[in-house]
Amino acid sequence: MSTGAQALLRTLLDAGVDTCFTNPGTSEMHFVAALDGAPDMRAVLTLFEGVATGAADGYARMAGKPAATLLHLGCGLGNGLANLHNARKGKTPVVNIVGDHATTHARYDAPLQSDIETVARNVSTWVRTAQSAETLSRDAAEAVAAAVGPPGSVATLIVPADVSWNTGAQPCQSLPLAAAPPADGKAIEAAAGALRQRGKAAILLGGRALREPALMAAARIAAATGAKLLAEVFPARMERGAGLPAPERIAYLAELASVQLAGLDCLLLVDAKAPVSFFAYPGKKSYLAPKGCRVIELVSPAQDAAGTLDQLASLLDAPGAPGKLLQPPAQPDLPEGRLTADKVCQAIGALLPENAIISDEAQTSGVTLPAFTAGAPRHDLLTLTGGAIGQGLPVAIGAALACPQRKVFALAGDGSAMYTIQALWTMARERLDIIVIVFNNRAYAILNMELERTGSGQPGPAARAQMDLANPAIDFVALGQGMGVRSARAETCDQFIQALQDAIDSPGPHLIETVVPNAFTGFKLKALPHALDALKILPGPLARAIKRKIAP
Amino acid sequence: MSTGAQALLRTLLDAGVDTCFTNPGTSEMHFVAALDGAPDMRAVLTLFEGVATGAADGYARMAGKPAATLLHLGCGLGNGLANLHNARKGKTPVVNIVGDHATTHARYDAPLQSDIETVARNVSTWVRTAQSAETLSRDAAEAVAAAVGPPGSVATLIVPADVSWNTGAQPCQSLPLAAAPPADGKAIEAAAGALRQRGKAAILLGGRALREPALMAAARIAAATGAKLLAEVFPARMERGAGLPAPERIAYLAELASVQLAGLDCLLLVDAKAPVSFFAYPGKKSYLAPKGCRVIELVSPAQDAAGTLDQLASLLDAPGAPGKLLQPPAQPDLPEGRLTADKVCQAIGALLPENAIISDEAQTSGVTLPAFTAGAPRHDLLTLTGGAIGQGLPVAIGAALACPQRKVFALAGDGSAMYTIQALWTMARERLDIIVIVFNNRAYAILNMELERTGSGQPGPAARAQMDLANPAIDFVALGQGMGVRSARAETCDQFIQALQDAIDSPGPHLIETVVPNAFTGFKLKALPHALDALKILPGPLARAIKRKIAP
Repeated sequence: MSTGAQALLRTLLDAGVDTCFTNPGTSEMHFVAALDGAPDMRAVLTLFEGVATGAADGYARMAGKPAATLLHLGCGLGNGLANLHNARKGKTPVVNIVGDHATTHARYDAPLQSDIETVARNVSTWVRTAQSAETLSRDAAEAVAAAVGPPGSVATLIVPADVSWNTGAQPCQSLPLAAAPPADGKAIEAAAGALRQRGKAAILLGGRALREPALMAAARIAAATGAKLLAEVFPARMERGAGLPAPERIAYLAELASVQLAGLDCLLLVDAKAPVSFFAYPGKKSYLAPKGCRVIELVSPAQDAAGTLDQLASLLDAPGAPGKLLQPPAQPDLPEGRLTADKVCQAIGALLPENAIISDEAQTSGVTLPAFTAGAPRHDLLTLTGGAIGQGLPVAIGAALACPQRKVFALAGDGSAMYTIQALWTMARERLDIIVIVFNNRAYAILNMELERTGSGQPGPAARAQMDLANPAIDFVALGQGMGVRSARAETCDQFIQALQDAIDSPGPHLIETVVPNAFTGFKLKALPHALDALKILPGPLARAIKRKIAP
Repeated sequence: MSTGAQALLRTLLDAGVDTCFTNPGTSEMHFVAALDGAPDMRAVLTLFEGVATGAADGYARMAGKPAATLLHLGCGLGNGLANLHNARKGKTPVVNIVGDHATTHARYDAPLQSDIETVARNVSTWVRTAQSAETLSRDAAEAVAAAVGPPGSVATLIVPADVSWNTGAQPCQSLPLAAAPPADGKAIEAAAGALRQRGKAAILLGGRALREPALMAAARIAAATGAKLLAEVFPARMERGAGLPAPERIAYLAELASVQLAGLDCLLLVDAKAPVSFFAYPGKKSYLAPKGCRVIELVSPAQDAAGTLDQLASLLDAPGAPGKLLQPPAQPDLPEGRLTADKVCQAIGALLPENAIISDEAQTSGVTLPAFTAGAPRHDLLTLTGGAIGQGLPVAIGAALACPQRKVFALAGDGSAMYTIQALWTMARERLDIIVIVFNNRAYAILNMELERTGSGQPGPAARAQMDLANPAIDFVALGQGMGVRSARAETCDQFIQALQDAIDSPGPHLIETVVPNAFTGFKLKALPHALDALKILPGPLARAIKRKIAP
């Protein structure tokens, strides 16, 4: 006779959910106890719930199936909320198992009592509180199916302690999963008509349209029609590098994105939203497609991007291969001299091994990374889908567990790394092949820039102090070593190159703290084109395209 | 002509809110820019929102007035949720200022868009999204009044970016604050009647009833009637030590609490709830007052505990002073030899300076702290009001800012310290007089105990791994130094005593990592009375009372 928790674990495993990122408490002790009877479940302990939820997100992006989390009541779920927000925005499937007080205990309003469903609803498309051990397994099977979608989403199953510990439970078979259908024929015909018209057209690819099959079909369409290929600002997972089509990613800065989109007559959305500014700014527009540009949603996130694009390519008599639209191999030279954020990106581009995964949360310091890695060996890029920082290191954990044969690079700013710095401990504990690269510019550098963009005026010492992380400077080597990760500091290009090569050559987690200047001190918008002119040193058609746009 | 943000800051200052714990983003840049025009506002930067909200909680517990937080949209608020839960449960006033997208931008569902009000409602009694710069100041004045109560609570004001940056705003005068009334005369008479009856009575003190005025009145009542004085399990702030009445705190373990409450005929609640088990356990009761015990709520959290108890004392012709019910001075000897968690507590009891503040989140290792500090010089004890760990270090930050002349001790387990370890950086940045003592037993020790209590069976290696923090062991000295805090490790009593004395004697933050055995490995409930028999070495009437209860 199984307990609810035992049947729950068996049900998750039957549905293919075999990895669980945990931070349990008393209400989850029966789930924990049941782990010994479910050796196929890999339970990965984290020291903070934001690490668990971010890792589940990274895992699903790379594994193509959800992981579970195990969280302790409403407060544990709350701690995991920011990274669940990122998963929600990236349409990544996650199955949260959240323990709750026993059903008989809730009425006493004990200290940890809170309204879990309300917190869960903020990020979940599916929320349920299990009512009995007998029905718990069915709930779990439905949670997995809801998470898988399509589109992927966050499903949260709240499990009262007595539902876990009561007996009489049976595992539930996994439910049939729905396949994503292609867009309907009329929509595809309409898209073909739009692309055939005179005028400048672009196809904006997002979500699953940034994986190889859809990318190849889109590039064939581009070859046939001259349409430009764009990628959304923050893809959950983008397959890129030598041999793949290289859509131009819309810039984070609306000022640049407007340049990228200028002159378009038609914008076809494929698992992507119409481009909008990340934030609003006084007197600036939020919606970025130019006036008069026709915006057509061809493929929704619940539809099959690759299948639809294949049909569209056939309808357009597109060539069988995209030919010269494939990115040729090209890696930058190794940088020299004093280290800067750009040179860190350049060195990564020069040394990136085959089949790497990059989790990129270096929002300002990593700005030249896409260009420097454009012609690098093929790799996956995972970005900050929902804008809630503290995602980069946890996502790397999940990606490394999903793809144990691949090197994972986790790029973070000093500010962003600190939100979920506890991730380092789990990397060490699980001996994950992750290279954490922290750009320590001792500032919330992005805020230097945003302060100027919001027109808040010249900052005085009180305002500047809110962006200053130099007092005290954070010693990331100490933090890494304190959590069991081999760590090194680089202040010159030589030091960085050596540390990076060493990390690439030896297994297990590494941290490299790069001490770099804050490129955005005294940032001025009018200096932007000049600053981005640095891009002319970069290889590949993407760089040329960007250069044409920003320095016309 | 003021911007909304400028008027907001002025309104907060006029209402006495002059400390703000921040982690801003782009939507809060106009608030940040306005700081230079409001030099009386102390803006304390944190690296993680849970530090900001916990610090605001600790500040208000000691300052007796709220601090503000400055948080970035729904995800920033989400990161702060666990410590706001603790503030909510402790009835501590907090004013959250949460930035949001500009009102014109919300419709575009940009990446950071989320339903902030829903997240806020989970912890707040008052939630409002400001609609215009003109009305923002009035909103802020109402938020402060709502937070102050009585009872204290969390108020969340959501400020869209354009409401901050628009001009035409005027500061708003602070609103009159309601005074807490005493309980009505009939309720006081009924309580007097109950205490005069034959039978065993106790007065359970919580909330503001654990401050000196109410404690003294309660002790006079106890002296007159023989009623026993109890304190709630997790007080927000308890004034204690030599010269004050020493109510016996209800134990976290329901098994012990039941012993403490056994035989009671009447339980008078003063700003406290009827005792319940922290969690539910199979086959064990949640409600802990014994059968037949009359439970009377005399003072609600919205009422005046001290005034009511004074009236009750008069009605009972209580003596003017509690006499021998005051705790006599008594400090333990310094411990010797190998360090254990109990010896750490003993040394703290021996060396505690006058007028200290203790933020206690050492849930298992700190179990003997209350007894060892019972007769120490007068101090304030701040505990884990809502059970959401990760509170102890942030609360210490707020307490140190509220009381810059007092030494603050922050006690944490290795597990609990890691939830908001970023707090160390703010301690260093603000040069706060905080002594962080981490009990590093390399385990979630409380879960070893809870696994046994929940009857989940004998744990195997997979279950045990979920409580094991030894692989890798966390080096808290490295973490402290990495964030700029002077740090030392102690493995013997001598080392700990020397490090503690050094920390007491020199200003600024210190961290002492104590390497102690996990007292709860292989924990067995039946061994509890034996384990707690150690209490017989402790001084004071509290220890004698506890000993009588647990080893009858």
